Amino acid sequence: MASQQPEFEHPRKAFGWAARDTSGFLSPFNFSRRETGEKDVAFKVLYCGICHSDLHMVKNEWGNAIYPMVPGHEVAGVVTEVGSKVQKYKVGDKVGVGCMVESCRTCQNCVEDLENYCPKNIFTYGAKFIDGTITYGGYSDSMVVDEHFVIRIPEALPLDAAAPLLCAGITVYSPLRYYGLDKPGLHVGVVGLGGLGHMAVKFAKAFGAKVTVISTSPNKKDEAINILGADSFLLSRDQDQIQAAMETLDGIIDTVSAVHPLVSLIGLLKSHGKLVMVGGPEKPLELPIFPLLKGRKIVAGSLIGGLKETQEMINFAAKHNVKPEIEVIAIDYVNTAMERLAKADVKYRFVIDIGNTLKPTS
Amino acid sequence: MASQQPEFEHPRKAFGWAARDTSGFLSPFNFSRRETGEKDVAFKVLYCGICHSDLHMVKNEWGNAIYPMVPGHEVAGVVTEVGSKVQKYKVGDKVGVGCMVESCRTCQNCVEDLENYCPKNIFTYGAKFIDGTITYGGYSDSMVVDEHFVIRIPEALPLDAAAPLLCAGITVYSPLRYYGLDKPGLHVGVVGLGGLGHMAVKFAKAFGAKVTVISTSPNKKDEAINILGADSFLLSRDQDQIQAAMETLDGIIDTVSAVHPLVSLIGLLKSHGKLVMVGGPEKPLELPIFPLLKGRKIVAGSLIGGLKETQEMINFAAKHNVKPEIEVIAIDYVNTAMERLAKADVKYRFVIDIGNTLKPTS
Repeated sequence: MASQQPEFEHPRKAFGWAARDTSGFLSPFNFSRRETGEKDVAFKVLYCGICHSDLHMVKNEWGNAIYPMVPGHEVAGVVTEVGSKVQKYKVGDKVGVGCMVESCRTCQNCVEDLENYCPKNIFTYGAKFIDGTITYGGYSDSMVVDEHFVIRIPEALPLDAAAPLLCAGITVYSPLRYYGLDKPGLHVGVVGLGGLGHMAVKFAKAFGAKVTVISTSPNKKDEAINILGADSFLLSRDQDQIQAAMETLDGIIDTVSAVHPLVSLIGLLKSHGKLVMVGGPEKPLELPIFPLLKGRKIVAGSLIGGLKETQEMINFAAKHNVKPEIEVIAIDYVNTAMERLAKADVKYRFVIDIGNTLKPTS
Repeated sequence: MASQQPEFEHPRKAFGWAARDTSGFLSPFNFSRRETGEKDVAFKVLYCGICHSDLHMVKNEWGNAIYPMVPGHEVAGVVTEVGSKVQKYKVGDKVGVGCMVESCRTCQNCVEDLENYCPKNIFTYGAKFIDGTITYGGYSDSMVVDEHFVIRIPEALPLDAAAPLLCAGITVYSPLRYYGLDKPGLHVGVVGLGGLGHMAVKFAKAFGAKVTVISTSPNKKDEAINILGADSFLLSRDQDQIQAAMETLDGIIDTVSAVHPLVSLIGLLKSHGKLVMVGGPEKPLELPIFPLLKGRKIVAGSLIGGLKETQEMINFAAKHNVKPEIEVIAIDYVNTAMERLAKADVKYRFVIDIGNTLKPTS
């Protein structure tokens, strides 16, 4: 199967936009999707968020790209067909798909609803599926996904705002929960104010925390406090501000994927505080050990979330009105959007209006 | 008070061995101890362990030395006098003192029995006490310590073996408990097989764990397995051994204070595993971030333990017959012992027989 052309390897016609090489330039692409299997949900894609990792992936910056590549793992739409054994969804339901479309289902992580840590999980695009074909993401008209990997989008959430929750949202929600930073009255720091960071502020506030944004950009202060609802702001290069805030935070969600110093972040933590990395710097960071010992502090990692927790997250978001700040764009703006994203020129997430702007090539 | 000579600043005569300068050479020293206050316990020192940090301290390798310095924070002895308001101890009781002799008693850490993380705690030697005098440790004939900082040594434990538990023991026991590595059936790694490491093996075994020792020295394998009871051994520079053991450990206690790579240790952890540093490398270590994210792993610190937990630890040790391997020495061997300790030539802890070998200078 894998050797066939993408347009003919499956029976169901599909189209989207794909990168063809490391330029990362996206252009219209005809391909195909599998028939709706017994446990599959087929859905029409209406919106797809642009995650920063899409930018890395289309340019093969992580070295694992398979072209043509249809990006997109923040996908929202409406069910068009369900397989005979599908139990959770019916035609017309609002659904979404995040970063994964399959996992081994049997390892300890899968058994514990932590498919995101399954070593054999299969990403939504650019990965080899169990049938040997390559997965294509949500910059496309339709998807066919096993119901286990489909999320129900609550009525209270608009589909365009729901889409980024499926990656950016769960990526910060999961560590806030797992590391116990979801208790009212805690003081949580958020490093970096991009797609992930702005969601971390909103979820932490929804959990009842006091939130301090830590950024290298003084011009983020106003946004952080007045638009996103943070309680305070620290300019990370202002040592006076940092010194005055030492030992005040219960935890920090660090969303920065560039190499950056950890010592002052560890210093900002109270005893037993937790610095949780969700961005992925490619080079090692310098870790001072004495400050970890002296306050029994933790530097930890977290990567997206499992399906059960993703559903819990999106239900929580609907209930507490936690929504990303988005800029909705047409598909033919996507290459410009990618350029702007590379310059961090977006507040805070691009979402492609697939339903209204993606037109089939003739 | 602080300006007075150590011999006359307090009313009670005391003697011990002190370092006078950064040579670290120890020699007999006449000084004094305070009268037994209302809540104080006075005790005759019988044994004192030699902690690796004593070696750093007498040579001022951490830059905070105050000379003359009487080291020793693994102190065991017998009560000779108690203050009028002392509730827990009476004359003749077997007691011990670890790394601390005072703390603020009011901060959140103190309130939670975590005096070890109180920013104002006062170390057993080489620190300024609340009366302005300098604290002197257990390489001496007697101590006077507030009962809150005194540990009862259970009858089942010989005093010489009990002494090292008060620092080396609690330093590894506390993180095994706090980080949840105290459950039967877990697989725990121990990096480095010195004073701390060999106690980590024994406590982890007592908790019911499978224990793997990770070391740079192939000649530690036999000791680790046949003397200390570890289940397996990994030579850290043997990449084949390391690769074969990837993702097998629930947690690691890393006792190494030299700069060393973390990447393979993180790799040895299962998902959600915890790498706990208890040694204190002075330079930052290189921390790879992606491996933390991919398995939701943690790099953490821990520093000794609080008084309540230290009592719990020593009671546990007595019940489960967890004792350090010691080499008992005379006080006039202490400088030779320090030289051997610097070369890691001890299995596994020197304990000074203070009671039988420390003689007053005339």
